Amino acid sequence: MANITKKVSWSGRGEDRGERTPLLNGAEDGKYNRQDFVRSRPKEIPHNEKLLSLKYESLDYDNSENQLFLEEERRMSHMGFRCLEIRRWVICGLIGFFTGLIACMIDIAVEKLAGIKYSVVKKNIEKFTEHGGLSISLILWAVLNSAFVMVGAIAVAFIEPIAAGSGIPQIKCYLNGVKIPRVVRLKTLVVKVFGVICSVAGGLAVGKEGPMIHSGAVVAAGVSQGRSTSLKKDLKMFEYFRRDTEKRDFVSAGAAAGVSAAFGAPVGGVLFSLEEGASFWNQMLTWRIFFASMVSSFTLNFFLSIYHGKPGELSSPGLINFGRFDGDTVQYNIYEIPLFIIIGALGGMLGALFNLLNNWLTIFRIRYIHRPCLQVMEAMLVAAVTATVSFAMIYFSNDCQPLGPDHSEEYPLQLFCADGEYNSMATAFFNTPERSVRSLFHNPPGTYNPVTLGVFTLAYFFLAVWTYGLTVSAGVFIPSLLIGAAWGRLFGILLSVIASSQPSWADPGKYALMGAAAQLGGIVRMTLSLTVILVEATGNVTYGFPIMLVLMTAKIVGDYFVEGLYDIHIKLQSVPFLHWEAPATSHWLTAREVMSSPVTCFNRVEKVGTIVDVLSNTSTNHNGFPVVTHTTGHDEPGKICGLILRSQLIVLLKHKVFVERASSRLIQRKLQLKDFRDAYPRFPPIQSIHVSQDERECMMDLTEFMNPTPYTVPQETSLPRVFKLFRALGLRHLVVVDDENRVVGLVTRKDLARYHIGKDGLEELHLAQT
Amino acid sequence: MANITKKVSWSGRGEDRGERTPLLNGAEDGKYNRQDFVRSRPKEIPHNEKLLSLKYESLDYDNSENQLFLEEERRMSHMGFRCLEIRRWVICGLIGFFTGLIACMIDIAVEKLAGIKYSVVKKNIEKFTEHGGLSISLILWAVLNSAFVMVGAIAVAFIEPIAAGSGIPQIKCYLNGVKIPRVVRLKTLVVKVFGVICSVAGGLAVGKEGPMIHSGAVVAAGVSQGRSTSLKKDLKMFEYFRRDTEKRDFVSAGAAAGVSAAFGAPVGGVLFSLEEGASFWNQMLTWRIFFASMVSSFTLNFFLSIYHGKPGELSSPGLINFGRFDGDTVQYNIYEIPLFIIIGALGGMLGALFNLLNNWLTIFRIRYIHRPCLQVMEAMLVAAVTATVSFAMIYFSNDCQPLGPDHSEEYPLQLFCADGEYNSMATAFFNTPERSVRSLFHNPPGTYNPVTLGVFTLAYFFLAVWTYGLTVSAGVFIPSLLIGAAWGRLFGILLSVIASSQPSWADPGKYALMGAAAQLGGIVRMTLSLTVILVEATGNVTYGFPIMLVLMTAKIVGDYFVEGLYDIHIKLQSVPFLHWEAPATSHWLTAREVMSSPVTCFNRVEKVGTIVDVLSNTSTNHNGFPVVTHTTGHDEPGKICGLILRSQLIVLLKHKVFVERASSRLIQRKLQLKDFRDAYPRFPPIQSIHVSQDERECMMDLTEFMNPTPYTVPQETSLPRVFKLFRALGLRHLVVVDDENRVVGLVTRKDLARYHIGKDGLEELHLAQT
Repeated sequence: MANITKKVSWSGRGEDRGERTPLLNGAEDGKYNRQDFVRSRPKEIPHNEKLLSLKYESLDYDNSENQLFLEEERRMSHMGFRCLEIRRWVICGLIGFFTGLIACMIDIAVEKLAGIKYSVVKKNIEKFTEHGGLSISLILWAVLNSAFVMVGAIAVAFIEPIAAGSGIPQIKCYLNGVKIPRVVRLKTLVVKVFGVICSVAGGLAVGKEGPMIHSGAVVAAGVSQGRSTSLKKDLKMFEYFRRDTEKRDFVSAGAAAGVSAAFGAPVGGVLFSLEEGASFWNQMLTWRIFFASMVSSFTLNFFLSIYHGKPGELSSPGLINFGRFDGDTVQYNIYEIPLFIIIGALGGMLGALFNLLNNWLTIFRIRYIHRPCLQVMEAMLVAAVTATVSFAMIYFSNDCQPLGPDHSEEYPLQLFCADGEYNSMATAFFNTPERSVRSLFHNPPGTYNPVTLGVFTLAYFFLAVWTYGLTVSAGVFIPSLLIGAAWGRLFGILLSVIASSQPSWADPGKYALMGAAAQLGGIVRMTLSLTVILVEATGNVTYGFPIMLVLMTAKIVGDYFVEGLYDIHIKLQSVPFLHWEAPATSHWLTAREVMSSPVTCFNRVEKVGTIVDVLSNTSTNHNGFPVVTHTTGHDEPGKICGLILRSQLIVLLKHKVFVERASSRLIQRKLQLKDFRDAYPRFPPIQSIHVSQDERECMMDLTEFMNPTPYTVPQETSLPRVFKLFRALGLRHLVVVDDENRVVGLVTRKDLARYHIGKDGLEELHLAQT
Repeated sequence: MANITKKVSWSGRGEDRGERTPLLNGAEDGKYNRQDFVRSRPKEIPHNEKLLSLKYESLDYDNSENQLFLEEERRMSHMGFRCLEIRRWVICGLIGFFTGLIACMIDIAVEKLAGIKYSVVKKNIEKFTEHGGLSISLILWAVLNSAFVMVGAIAVAFIEPIAAGSGIPQIKCYLNGVKIPRVVRLKTLVVKVFGVICSVAGGLAVGKEGPMIHSGAVVAAGVSQGRSTSLKKDLKMFEYFRRDTEKRDFVSAGAAAGVSAAFGAPVGGVLFSLEEGASFWNQMLTWRIFFASMVSSFTLNFFLSIYHGKPGELSSPGLINFGRFDGDTVQYNIYEIPLFIIIGALGGMLGALFNLLNNWLTIFRIRYIHRPCLQVMEAMLVAAVTATVSFAMIYFSNDCQPLGPDHSEEYPLQLFCADGEYNSMATAFFNTPERSVRSLFHNPPGTYNPVTLGVFTLAYFFLAVWTYGLTVSAGVFIPSLLIGAAWGRLFGILLSVIASSQPSWADPGKYALMGAAAQLGGIVRMTLSLTVILVEATGNVTYGFPIMLVLMTAKIVGDYFVEGLYDIHIKLQSVPFLHWEAPATSHWLTAREVMSSPVTCFNRVEKVGTIVDVLSNTSTNHNGFPVVTHTTGHDEPGKICGLILRSQLIVLLKHKVFVERASSRLIQRKLQLKDFRDAYPRFPPIQSIHVSQDERECMMDLTEFMNPTPYTVPQETSLPRVFKLFRALGLRHLVVVDDENRVVGLVTRKDLARYHIGKDGLEELHLAQT
């Protein structure tokens, strides 16, 4: 972790591919490895977390209000805006519907596949328990697990590496305004869904919730644009929404719909989307997000109710993810408050430990495990080890419990227990993690042996740490909840032993819930949205207050040690992520120090050759160019009169919107906003556009296409002030001007993101072309 | 409603009082009436709703980053910022605590007083039922009611008229950035609390929830400033927070804490505060708001649990406002969805009718009932009529129900029923509205006669319309819920009659809840926060989805007819309220058309006499002045180099920070930020500052005090773009410059608020010095 220059695999590849794939979660770009790395095949990829990558581009949340745009808006009647608004609602409805459908599909597929697997293994175990030779069962189990995981990992590693992990860090970045390439493509969605089914069915310590959230975001990006690049299909619908501003709003809705489907928590979904992503809170937008959320959870519940054989019963308790906490047993007392705080603190510490271990592991992965084959092998290894550990624990535990008539276990393993009894360790391991959480929450007191729970917590903790960051599509929510539920229940059992006189309040299920909240809170550090998600997922409001308390404590304690898991992964990938506020002690800095300069500017009427040369310059690779009035002096910067984007220039070049020097103002073709929208979001690289020598001598009039009123700040503006403007409006470029309105610098995302509070006060990250 | 100039009572009073009191809810400034109006005593105050008052000032959510401020921030270490942050959390905790305490006090006082009243009346009724002569009982009841209401109305009308109504429109305006004078003063709080106890105990069709929210906001404003003007006490604490930015954040927290205490809905509180107020969503701020909310509901529940004799049992169902919906009966089916939508539409229409009637009534009140005596008399009249109507309805209804052993009625009236039975109409009228809602939600099927419910709905609807806007402190939430619950229950009963084969799903309690949601949603038009509030207040998550659906439908249907009740009242008071976005069809307009010009500017070093003259000019009464570099030409505007506020200039004048012409740069006293903070928020008027003729010749150097980097926009910027910048950053002044950075205009709140979408497209409100 010393100051080694970071050379991750996608570095230094010029602009020929148009898009690069800097990946989160330690997964690497498969293609690149195979093509270019074969020759050198470095054993180690050095990594330094004090870097900020220059390779990420920003989304533009600020509309480019050029003449074309304004003309279109002005042509539109009030009725036209109404129709647009209705279309937005329709899109949100569709987003919710498809997200719910996909979530339902994942749910059912996982349940079916896991059911088949566990039945086969159970039969096998039962067979060999009598005859001896259980090692064959172990091998069967391990092989089955590895096979599932292998298929999933191959899909992820070789087809779409961005689909690795939970997807939440990527969505967080996207909503923050960082363009993560390929993150919202249809191909990613397919791989993600396929991958998560494999990895959950493969018995890994993973959940399907994160991928559902990512799926929602992809669905949103696809539906709102009315076309798919992967399918090469353009429905010619919703063309108005083909810009970053609108797309980002819909992706928020998609993420919310994903949460809503994953946990059955529509309000939690809205809050998640706001807590993680949004900055400017707009009432109408929030309502649309809410609507998408609502439709998504409705769709999921509707189809699941059919699947469960109770069509139309939308309020069936079986649809509540973690089981409904019953009205009578649900209570707590004021003297339990300190206990909840202790649980929260414990969760914060365990969460920090989890994050720290996973941080080291991820750095190790970035350095050494960057080839797809290795990644697949690691995933298979983890799957096999998970099966082995589970098997060993079940084998060596002799915690037999009577099998009641109303037992909730799907696959009770008798193993060495007496008839009519089952192995209780098996209920924890021999099950999908979601079901295990449910058992821990709701099984009556006495179901679990404290030793079993302790050993399980320990084993599962390390398995989960190892698993998160593998090249498989998988989430961390459910494993975290499971770890927490296990030690929370243990805590509850110990309490009831201590306070044996009053066993009624020390309900182990309640403490399992609190532990689950604490552990998850300690790992991901969400508070408001997580409270609501847990309340909605358990169908119970009464525990809302203790859950809040636990989550708050977990966050405060956890933050003392290390950041949240998602933030760690974002940082490890050197993403220029903008936090909510500028670092506290940054009033020393002004725009003058922060900005990049000198700035490449264009004249209002510029020579085509100049533009092509600037755009082709790979060493700078700017994306936004201030347009200035022509000045006489060469050294003196020009007065700002607009801002034009690389993407706009490329469309202009492609359509050859040139003015010949002699016959002034002879534009061959009138460009429309539609041309820009058709090219969005994958504008061709400059190299693909051929400009002849004659054309290089032509001029281009940018007046009509540039944004004539970019936001500007004076040089003396303090960093927090610049930051606030930039963040609140979701800008991509902020022009710094002197008191004559002459361009002196440009502030972009990386200029702001590189300042952060370190141990010795304000630190500056290095920028790197990695 | 013709185009009459509006001359409400606070008009044309010059600047001598420093603060004016434009009131919402039709309440008038008592003092002014008595002092100045006695001579003319106009019978009618003309009113025109197409006006925008110029008398409201804006809050400044943008920090004035002058040299003093920057120096202070730069001196502060990282540790210092940490301490500030901790102090913010402590303040939020205190806000929550005190808000909870006040809510608890209101709760208990209302319950006690209403208890005494109903016991007395009940005894009296019982006595006279036998002997005949029930008209004496009626008179007793009416007199008791009127007495309570009179006391409350006198307090409001004569002591603090701003305390009238629910306070939510005022808080909404405050959070939107409009300074409503005296709205967050201690005196207001005292009158508000006293007033609401009187009006609820007085049997009016009102709730105590709105006032609780207002109380929370006042507590927040007081605690965060560490001093009170009413008490003339300065604790010298929290001086850092003495500016609009910080204060507004705390007031958000206070409003959330108020909701949380009023409904036992901490998450709902946060959402309310965000939905109604915030624009820039900041994670840390949201968490603090959440914390205040949490503490508030905890405090309330803790004290109430002691009051109810179950100390420490924080999860007692009795603490859930509208009673917990039980786990077993709670369910719904897909074929009920259309029914919910019908209920929502019904609620939207009834809500729109409510708002329309109340709108007319409020205009009538503004015109004719503007003297405090009249207002008190009206309130007393309403109280007496309410008692009479109730009595008549109880008297003429012969709907007797058997009195079960576990009846939940506090004061069952036997009246003309047989022994062991009680009059069911009386349960609705002879009770605080909150308890009536609870009965409608939870009483078993068959408790109410459909005719009783129908008549009750009708009577209560008109009583509630008449009551809202009276000069009493009272909210509209509970009456709305009650009306809705009544017709919702009626709907449920009718359903179960129609679908007599399947009576299990047509639970009248469920439909009462949906009706309540629909009616409230139709009146106030909130969706997200209201869903969560209702879910939390009924302790049940299962109905979350239907409630959302109902609220959405109610909002869409209601918006088709007329605005929400709060918006109507805000509009009637001509408050320059900024909505979330600029009107859709406003791309035609640019900053040039929108801005005010010419602008009064100051030079960087300006003559004291000039400043005093400008500040004393009552015809302009500007609050922000661009500071420009000295220019040679007289006609040419100067280049902008800063922005200074009236309040800052006044502090400078007060402390005589002058430079004598001869001895340049000889400032007598170095001003500190503290001096500005001590004067905040009630800066003295310019008239109170004496400047001698000699001093008028001195100069003032504004460099150190002005904000050197105000936000500026070019003249060509479109209105939506200006609006976005203004709204997202919570600005008060936005300087419009030409391409040489010379000041050409100033955009303030009123310039943006006056555009709105009317029937024929974009309309412009007239500005008036009212």
